[in-house]
Amino acid sequence: MTALPSPAVDPARTLAELKDLRALTGDENGAQRVAFTPRWLAARQFLKDRLAELPAEVHQDAAGNLWATLRGDSERELLIGGHLDSVPGGGWLDGCLNVLAGLEVLRRVSAQYGGRPPVTLRLVDWADEEGARFGRSLYGSSAASGFFDVTELAKLRDRDGVALGDALREVGVTLEDAPQARAELAKAAAYLELHIEQGPVLEGLGLPLGAVLGTVGVERHTLTFRGQAAHSGSTPMNVRRDAFLAAGRFGQEIYAIAERHGGVCTVGSVKTWPGIVTSVVETCELTLDQRHLDAGKLAAMWQDAQDAARRFAEEGGCTVDFGYLWNIEPIPFHPELIDAAEASILEVTPATHRLPSGPLHDAAEVARAGVPTVMLFVQSLRGISHNKIEDTREDHIALSVQALDRLTTRAMAWVQER
Amino acid sequence: MTALPSPAVDPARTLAELKDLRALTGDENGAQRVAFTPRWLAARQFLKDRLAELPAEVHQDAAGNLWATLRGDSERELLIGGHLDSVPGGGWLDGCLNVLAGLEVLRRVSAQYGGRPPVTLRLVDWADEEGARFGRSLYGSSAASGFFDVTELAKLRDRDGVALGDALREVGVTLEDAPQARAELAKAAAYLELHIEQGPVLEGLGLPLGAVLGTVGVERHTLTFRGQAAHSGSTPMNVRRDAFLAAGRFGQEIYAIAERHGGVCTVGSVKTWPGIVTSVVETCELTLDQRHLDAGKLAAMWQDAQDAARRFAEEGGCTVDFGYLWNIEPIPFHPELIDAAEASILEVTPATHRLPSGPLHDAAEVARAGVPTVMLFVQSLRGISHNKIEDTREDHIALSVQALDRLTTRAMAWVQER
Repeated sequence: MTALPSPAVDPARTLAELKDLRALTGDENGAQRVAFTPRWLAARQFLKDRLAELPAEVHQDAAGNLWATLRGDSERELLIGGHLDSVPGGGWLDGCLNVLAGLEVLRRVSAQYGGRPPVTLRLVDWADEEGARFGRSLYGSSAASGFFDVTELAKLRDRDGVALGDALREVGVTLEDAPQARAELAKAAAYLELHIEQGPVLEGLGLPLGAVLGTVGVERHTLTFRGQAAHSGSTPMNVRRDAFLAAGRFGQEIYAIAERHGGVCTVGSVKTWPGIVTSVVETCELTLDQRHLDAGKLAAMWQDAQDAARRFAEEGGCTVDFGYLWNIEPIPFHPELIDAAEASILEVTPATHRLPSGPLHDAAEVARAGVPTVMLFVQSLRGISHNKIEDTREDHIALSVQALDRLTTRAMAWVQER
Repeated sequence: MTALPSPAVDPARTLAELKDLRALTGDENGAQRVAFTPRWLAARQFLKDRLAELPAEVHQDAAGNLWATLRGDSERELLIGGHLDSVPGGGWLDGCLNVLAGLEVLRRVSAQYGGRPPVTLRLVDWADEEGARFGRSLYGSSAASGFFDVTELAKLRDRDGVALGDALREVGVTLEDAPQARAELAKAAAYLELHIEQGPVLEGLGLPLGAVLGTVGVERHTLTFRGQAAHSGSTPMNVRRDAFLAAGRFGQEIYAIAERHGGVCTVGSVKTWPGIVTSVVETCELTLDQRHLDAGKLAAMWQDAQDAARRFAEEGGCTVDFGYLWNIEPIPFHPELIDAAEASILEVTPATHRLPSGPLHDAAEVARAGVPTVMLFVQSLRGISHNKIEDTREDHIALSVQALDRLTTRAMAWVQER
C-alpha cells in the first residue's frame, strides 16, 4: 500500500483564481471592486461559490464582513484575513491575494484534517478596507475591533451624497448594528494576513517575502503658512512675506527630519492663495503625513516638523498654523508570531527581512483589539499599488501562498500550546 | 489795479472728487468699477459731468476710451492718461487718481490760457486697463497703440461666458472697429501718467514721489515637475521621486536668481497631483513671473530659472517641462521726460528717486507706440493695491497733483520746442 499524497496548497490554483477574479471584476482601468457596489458583490459571490465546496460555515456578520469557519477540536480560533474590495482602478492583488491565498490554505487544512482541524480556522473577508467610497478605511475590521463610532460613521456620504448607512442597507447591513461584529473576535487566538508590500523595500533587497513588525503610527496634520499677498512686479524681493518660500523650505526639511528619526514624512497636497501668477503667495496650505513604528520617535518627528515650520515662517515674515487631521498609534505585531512568520518564510526561500508596514491594514485593527497578529509581505514590483500597473512576480505569489500555509501550520500549533 | 491770482491746481478738490467717486462706485469691499459694468459707466458719467464745465471736446473713441481735448495753438498734443476702471474690490486710487489729477490739471491749463493753450492738451480715460473681467489687461490703450489682435480678443469670455465683443456692444463699441482707436495717437507728442506706486519702494525711502524709468519686461511661464506618486507609508525617503521637493527648492532659488540679476521673480501658484495626504507628489505645477527693466538681464533670469529647475528635477529623479504664458519686452520711458518729471517733483518736495515700474500701465502701450512717455509714482502705504486697504497719505496725493501740474507745464514747453 502506497502512502497517500500529503495534502498541499496549490499556488497555481490561487494564481488562476486571481486572474479569474480580475476578469470578473476589473476592466481596462484596473480592479473595480469598490465596497458595497455590484462588482464587489460579484467578487463576494466568487468567493462564496468556492467556499461552498468546503465543509465550512459561511456567514456575513453584523458589519458586513464575510466569515468562513472550519470548526476544529478546540474552540480557540486562528483567523486568516484579507479584503476583496479595491480602490477604483486598483491593482489585481491588493487585498484579494490575502483572501484567495487564505482560501487555498483553508482547502489544504480541511483536506489534511478531514474537515476538522485541531483548532478552529476561520477566513474573513473584511468589508471596505479601502474606504475608497466614503473616505474611511478599515470599516469592517474596526467594527470587529471596537474602534468604531456609529455616530461619526453615520455622517459619511459618498461623492453622490449617498450615506454610508444607506449603502450598507443595500447589502443587508444596518449601520447601528455593525458594532455587534465585535463578537466575531471573542475566541480569536491569533490572526494572520498576507499582503503585497505596496512599497519598494523587498524589491530593493531582492527578496520575495518579509515578516512584518507591525503597522507604523501615523500623525497627519495640515500646515498653513500665511504671509502677505503682494504685486509680483512692484514688490522687492527683500520685503516679501512669501508663504511659498517657507512652505518650499519645509518640503525639503522633512527629508532631514525623516532621516534623523528613521521614519517617513510626506507633503502630499500643496495649495496656494491667491494662487495667481501676478501675486506673491499669501497663504500656502500643506498636508503632512508622518509615520514611525516607534511612538516616541513619531512624536519627536512631529515636534521637529512644528519647530522647523515655525522657524521658516518666522525667517520669512510669515506665520504658521497647524491643523489636526488624524493620527493612530504604532501597532506592533506579536513577537512570537513574527518569529514564526520569519521561520515560515525561510522554509520556502533562503532569505528574508523584517520590516514595518507603512500602510495600515485590517491586521492593525485586529491587533489593537488584543489578538496576537502578524503579517507577511510579498514583494511589489516598482513598489506601486492602488493602480492598474500594481504587480508581483508570479513565482513570488506562489511563494507567498506557500509561506502563508507554513505559517498557518506554525500558528495553529502556537494556538494549541497557549 | 491788483494782479489777478495766477490759476493753480486745487489738490483739495481732487481729494474731494476721489472721495465722491469712492462713495458713488465703491462699497464696503472696495472699488467696484469693473470695466463695462454699470458702476464703471457711473464713474464715466461722473467724469463727463465735470468735463462739461470745461471748454473741452469730449468723445469716446472706437475702442471705448474717453477723450477730452482742449484745442491749443499747435495741433501737437500732450496727453495725460489714466483709467477709471478697477478690479473688483479694488482700491480708491488705482487708476482714478491719474484721471482726476489730470482733470484738475486740465482745469488749471484751461483757466490759465482762456481755454486755448499753446499746444493741444488731452485727457484720456483708458477702457479696461485692469482686464479684471476678461483676463486681458491694457485693452483700451493697446487698441490705441496697435498691439491689439481682434481675432484673439474675440475669443475672450468672462466668468459667465459673456464674450468681450458682447460686453463692448453694450457700451456702444464694436470690437472689430476698436483698432481705429490708433488714430487718437496720430498727433501725440508726449504722454504723462500719474499712478500710485503699488509697491513699497518709495515708502521704504520715505519719499512721496518718484520718476519712473519705464516698465519692466516680463517673462511668464509654467514649470511642471513630474516625479512618481508613491504611498506615503510604504515608500522610503531615499527612493522617492517627489515633485514637490524639486518645486520647493525652486521656490527658494528664485530669490538667488533675482538677487544675482537685480530683478524680481515670483512663484504665484502651486498645484499638486494627486494632491492627497497619503501620496508623494507626482506632479507639481508652478507659475513663474520674472521682471527686469533690462532685456538681457531678464533673459538671463529666465535661463537661470530653467537651469535651476532642470538641476533640481534631475537631482530628485524628476523631470521638468516649461510652458509659455506671456511675455513683454522692457519699455523704457523718454530720458528727457524722465528728467522733466524729476525736476517737477523737486519743485514740490525736497527729494525724489528714479525707479522702474514692475506693474504694467497704459503708459507702456503708449510708449511702445512711439510716443515719448513718462510716469510719476506717488507713494503707496504698505505697498498694497488691488485691495480695499490700498491707500496713500492725503498730503502725498496733494503733492502728486501739484507735481503732475508742474510736469504738464514742462512737457507743454518740451512739445513746443521739438
